[in-house]
Amino acid sequence: MTRTCLAVILAAGDSTRMKSSMSKVLHPIAGLPMIAHVMTSVRAAGMRDAVLVVGRDAEKVTKAGSIAEMTVSSVLQTERRGTGHAVLTAREAIAKGYDDVLVTYGDVPLVRPETFLAARAKLAEGADVVVIGFHAANPVGYGRLLVKDGELVAIREEKDATDEERKVTWCNSGLMVINGARALSWLDKIDNKNAKREFYLTDIVEIARADGGKVVAIDAPEAELAGCNTRAELAALEASWQVRRRHDLMLSGVSMIAPETVFLAHDTVLAQDVLIEPNVVFGPGVTVETGAVIHAFSHLEGAHVAEDATVGPFARLRPGANLAEGAKVGNFCEVKKAEIGAGAKVNHLTYIGDAVVGAGTNIGAGTITCNYDGVNKHETRIGENAFIGSNSALVAPVSIGNGAYVASGSVITENIPDEALAFGRARQEVKPERAKVVRERALALKASKKAER
Amino acid sequence: MTRTCLAVILAAGDSTRMKSSMSKVLHPIAGLPMIAHVMTSVRAAGMRDAVLVVGRDAEKVTKAGSIAEMTVSSVLQTERRGTGHAVLTAREAIAKGYDDVLVTYGDVPLVRPETFLAARAKLAEGADVVVIGFHAANPVGYGRLLVKDGELVAIREEKDATDEERKVTWCNSGLMVINGARALSWLDKIDNKNAKREFYLTDIVEIARADGGKVVAIDAPEAELAGCNTRAELAALEASWQVRRRHDLMLSGVSMIAPETVFLAHDTVLAQDVLIEPNVVFGPGVTVETGAVIHAFSHLEGAHVAEDATVGPFARLRPGANLAEGAKVGNFCEVKKAEIGAGAKVNHLTYIGDAVVGAGTNIGAGTITCNYDGVNKHETRIGENAFIGSNSALVAPVSIGNGAYVASGSVITENIPDEALAFGRARQEVKPERAKVVRERALALKASKKAER
Amino acid sequence: MTRTCLAVILAAGDSTRMKSSMSKVLHPIAGLPMIAHVMTSVRAAGMRDAVLVVGRDAEKVTKAGSIAEMTVSSVLQTERRGTGHAVLTAREAIAKGYDDVLVTYGDVPLVRPETFLAARAKLAEGADVVVIGFHAANPVGYGRLLVKDGELVAIREEKDATDEERKVTWCNSGLMVINGARALSWLDKIDNKNAKREFYLTDIVEIARADGGKVVAIDAPEAELAGCNTRAELAALEASWQVRRRHDLMLSGVSMIAPETVFLAHDTVLAQDVLIEPNVVFGPGVTVETGAVIHAFSHLEGAHVAEDATVGPFARLRPGANLAEGAKVGNFCEVKKAEIGAGAKVNHLTYIGDAVVGAGTNIGAGTITCNYDGVNKHETRIGENAFIGSNSALVAPVSIGNGAYVASGSVITENIPDEALAFGRARQEVKPERAKVVRERALALKASKKAER
Repeated sequence: MTRTCLAVILAAGDSTRMKSSMSKVLHPIAGLPMIAHVMTSVRAAGMRDAVLVVGRDAEKVTKAGSIAEMTVSSVLQTERRGTGHAVLTAREAIAKGYDDVLVTYGDVPLVRPETFLAARAKLAEGADVVVIGFHAANPVGYGRLLVKDGELVAIREEKDATDEERKVTWCNSGLMVINGARALSWLDKIDNKNAKREFYLTDIVEIARADGGKVVAIDAPEAELAGCNTRAELAALEASWQVRRRHDLMLSGVSMIAPETVFLAHDTVLAQDVLIEPNVVFGPGVTVETGAVIHAFSHLEGAHVAEDATVGPFARLRPGANLAEGAKVGNFCEVKKAEIGAGAKVNHLTYIGDAVVGAGTNIGAGTITCNYDGVNKHETRIGENAFIGSNSALVAPVSIGNGAYVASGSVITENIPDEALAFGRARQEVKPERAKVVRERALALKASKKAER
Repeated sequence: MTRTCLAVILAAGDSTRMKSSMSKVLHPIAGLPMIAHVMTSVRAAGMRDAVLVVGRDAEKVTKAGSIAEMTVSSVLQTERRGTGHAVLTAREAIAKGYDDVLVTYGDVPLVRPETFLAARAKLAEGADVVVIGFHAANPVGYGRLLVKDGELVAIREEKDATDEERKVTWCNSGLMVINGARALSWLDKIDNKNAKREFYLTDIVEIARADGGKVVAIDAPEAELAGCNTRAELAALEASWQVRRRHDLMLSGVSMIAPETVFLAHDTVLAQDVLIEPNVVFGPGVTVETGAVIHAFSHLEGAHVAEDATVGPFARLRPGANLAEGAKVGNFCEVKKAEIGAGAKVNHLTYIGDAVVGAGTNIGAGTITCNYDGVNKHETRIGENAFIGSNSALVAPVSIGNGAYVASGSVITENIPDEALAFGRARQEVKPERAKVVRERALALKASKKAER
Repeated sequence: MTRTCLAVILAAGDSTRMKSSMSKVLHPIAGLPMIAHVMTSVRAAGMRDAVLVVGRDAEKVTKAGSIAEMTVSSVLQTERRGTGHAVLTAREAIAKGYDDVLVTYGDVPLVRPETFLAARAKLAEGADVVVIGFHAANPVGYGRLLVKDGELVAIREEKDATDEERKVTWCNSGLMVINGARALSWLDKIDNKNAKREFYLTDIVEIARADGGKVVAIDAPEAELAGCNTRAELAALEASWQVRRRHDLMLSGVSMIAPETVFLAHDTVLAQDVLIEPNVVFGPGVTVETGAVIHAFSHLEGAHVAEDATVGPFARLRPGANLAEGAKVGNFCEVKKAEIGAGAKVNHLTYIGDAVVGAGTNIGAGTITCNYDGVNKHETRIGENAFIGSNSALVAPVSIGNGAYVASGSVITENIPDEALAFGRARQEVKPERAKVVRERALALKASKKAER
């Protein structure tokens, strides 16, 4: 499509019913602010210029809506005088002259680019205004699309509709594209001679028709056009997004035992033949390669899991976790900013942070890389095929050689050469029959405490 | 409402289909026994006197149903002769003379106080019997409410209904309020001249009418009136309760990414702008203040989380956990009966029990407060801005001063003054080339074991 | 039923839409390959002989479909020429002579034995072909069952159906049983004179009727007859299986607070009065006895949990975990191949592997059994009523006596006699005012790093 298009995104709402300390368009879906979802779809539909009409949290909204490969400006809407008035705050940009002008909403985040493209295609075919409609399961409260001979003759608000018109289930989403050459003249004709004294964008339908313009409507799935006024609706949007993305991933060859318990981020990449068990949460920035298994109760963020690696159950991969082929991170393990070499095992109750673990190395249960001195983070480097005995503390900065062996329960503070054995633990002492004494003392303490009461 | 009302709660069922070792009305919903939910609604509807008609687990049911601000007595139902008979076991209480008598059920726990109030309002307006009905999605099996000229003329059981009557979808819940002055005389007229030889409370409709009484029905949502006969129905009630409460919380400004994975207790308090990630379980007694984030896979019970504090993922707060503003409890951490000071961090793989952690203190990964001697619990006190090195064991009772520093891997058994540095670990020894020997010995053992087989 | 029956299971599909590195019939549901579910139902319906018609992954499918108490052979289908042709690859087995021949599918795993039995019963009553149908919520795309005078006269494909026929919602599942004496002669008459040049098994309906055979259809629930072409459908089958099994367990007296978050394996055994909290995953081989509680966020596999024992929250029981009566395994604990004695407690952050823990023993937080030397696994034996202080490492092989006491933070490498007290930790040293020095040094390092940049 070589036609130019300006996207006008209305994002100035007060979000009162969200009961939130921030604008609703900043609330995330799949880890990405709602407004960024809108922009991503706008971009994917080929638009390169956008104006954000902002109000509350203007700066943050502008920042969140500014995405790569697009020129995004913003205008501040200082008064709430209706959608028609809101669009006109973008007058300057519209006046630059675009073939098409798209009006969409910062709180309608699930519209697919295909829908924007379908609307613009109608403009290219000769329509002057294209309204995006949807068939409502329950149309009560929506404006109805009244069509005659293939043209949209009016958008009838619920309160003004006849009984016959109320039976119409095709409803107005509020989204539309407008012939850019005529948009301003029509927008300027919208008045506020109505009960609420507001300028309604929907009036453009009758204005354009009166001026010889052709107005049509296209249809899109109701789920795409759902908006967000409360946190319950926000949760519904998130659910809708998740259902769609899980389904796409399953069709592409990802197994999910219980997809409804897998929570994806906007950018989660899962290869074919990846298996995701129940109850897995993906934060942003995760890639999982083919054959890998993410066991139940795992939480991944900013991590890369290579082929045939396994994670969990009960594992947490934090940003910078990079598991090589066949590596394993098991239960109650946390990995942060660390390379886990091919076939290396971090199986239980371990923290690996700011570290490199060589291929084939085994990290015993309860191992902790002590990477923090209260101020700085230090690195732990462990070679290949090393063995770290259970319950060891590796005090960084420290380096452990290839094939080295750390005895269980050691505190390691100095480097260990290749193939060396290191101890850092006290010798055991046994005091026969003394457990009784300890126990009796404890019981006596209990008795004395009781007596005090 | 200044009218007096006695609530008669039928709670004597055998619960056979629950296949349970206890009465069904003791089974919890949102952590509170079903019978207590009923009583809470009864109280919220302004009633102060109640009689529990009990059978199985009589004492426990009476105890669970006895709530503050109400006078609750109980009578033992020794025979199962129908609902009409059951209500009459409360004869003595009814005879005391109340304006209204409410009959409700211990296994119908989701009725809202508004519904009880609406029924009583009809009595106040002049009705003598008010039956609470509901529009059934599938009415098969329910008694139908037959209404004429605004009055309820009969409750028709399925088996006695004509084809026409079976089309009625307005059904009898079994709940009703009765004019207290006439209740006993009408209840006494119920007979058992029917196939099952039972006394049916529903007969009161025709008895009252025959005696010049006015009988009406009011409507309530079907979900409110759902009963419980099996554990599958118990789970459905729990689900219904959770859906309702999550929705209310979201509307009040709490964000839930996946509300269907958040399990609330009957008394969970979440402030506006709290964010709850997927998979969080609340036991009783939790309060979370504004701006706090409860990350995925967290379990909280008896805990207080102050403003902007963060919990999880994979954290467990047990009773007495008290997180101050901005405190952080991270993955695989358990906190029990402990104060975590403002901005203090308990980030990984740690157990803090019976402890005070001062503001700004950092607890390293794998730290354990050794609070138990096998008999008594002892306290650990850690000052402000202290640093506890990873994998340390703090053997209580012990006190660590402000700004103190514990070296990683230490066992701390004695108090540490402010600003002191403490070690409690062995010095490391390295034996060059000895890892090979260890490995060869292990391989030889493996070989010998194999040979033995 | 004393009639003999051969089951012919079509399992040769290419599974293209699964986008999988293995045949779809090998994909698991509730931890068991789909094909094994089919075989289990076939066996439960009294059949003892089966032929698997295999293609992709022929050996693995044959292995997965070979179950105890059945004689299962397999034949390789080398060409894809339609279902009629596929059944005939089992010609040799059919020719052996059976009273009944069942044709079913490897990717239709939820059929209950009752359904197979109902179809066979119709053969016993005199029918020659019995087609298993279902009432489709949305029949579009399915072949319709056209019935006249109680007999099935045709299976009409969607594309060939009249408008009137398309209104029929009774649809063909593809499953059928055939009079064994006449099966081959009818199967041989199926031709491929159609658009796709395929041999359609459904043609047998008209062939049998033309030959004087009696053809009828029986009805089964749609959910039972769902097939699997994509991973999304695989997930739907898993969901369907889970819903059914959870419901059965709840009716048998198991409490599940949120059944939709409990994931069962095909062989999970839960006794009456077991309580399962939200978010519990069962791998294969788990038995839980009455009164036990599985708290939220637990993962069990190959484990036995005795009466009144408690598990979790956040516990993982791996194969060989055996909890005796009243034992407790708590948060962030992993138990593998270990006996946990009656009333013993493993409460926090612990790994118990290859071990025996005696009755009444308390294992402190952060305890690790160091069971692996990099090559071999070694055993830890702990007696009764022992006390293992927190953060201890028990280096196996090692034995700790009854009533013994291990001091917190110890590394235990040698056996401890009954009633003895053992230490294995360094003495604490305190360096007054040195924390400041440490901190200043760390801050200086930070400053120098910053300067470098």
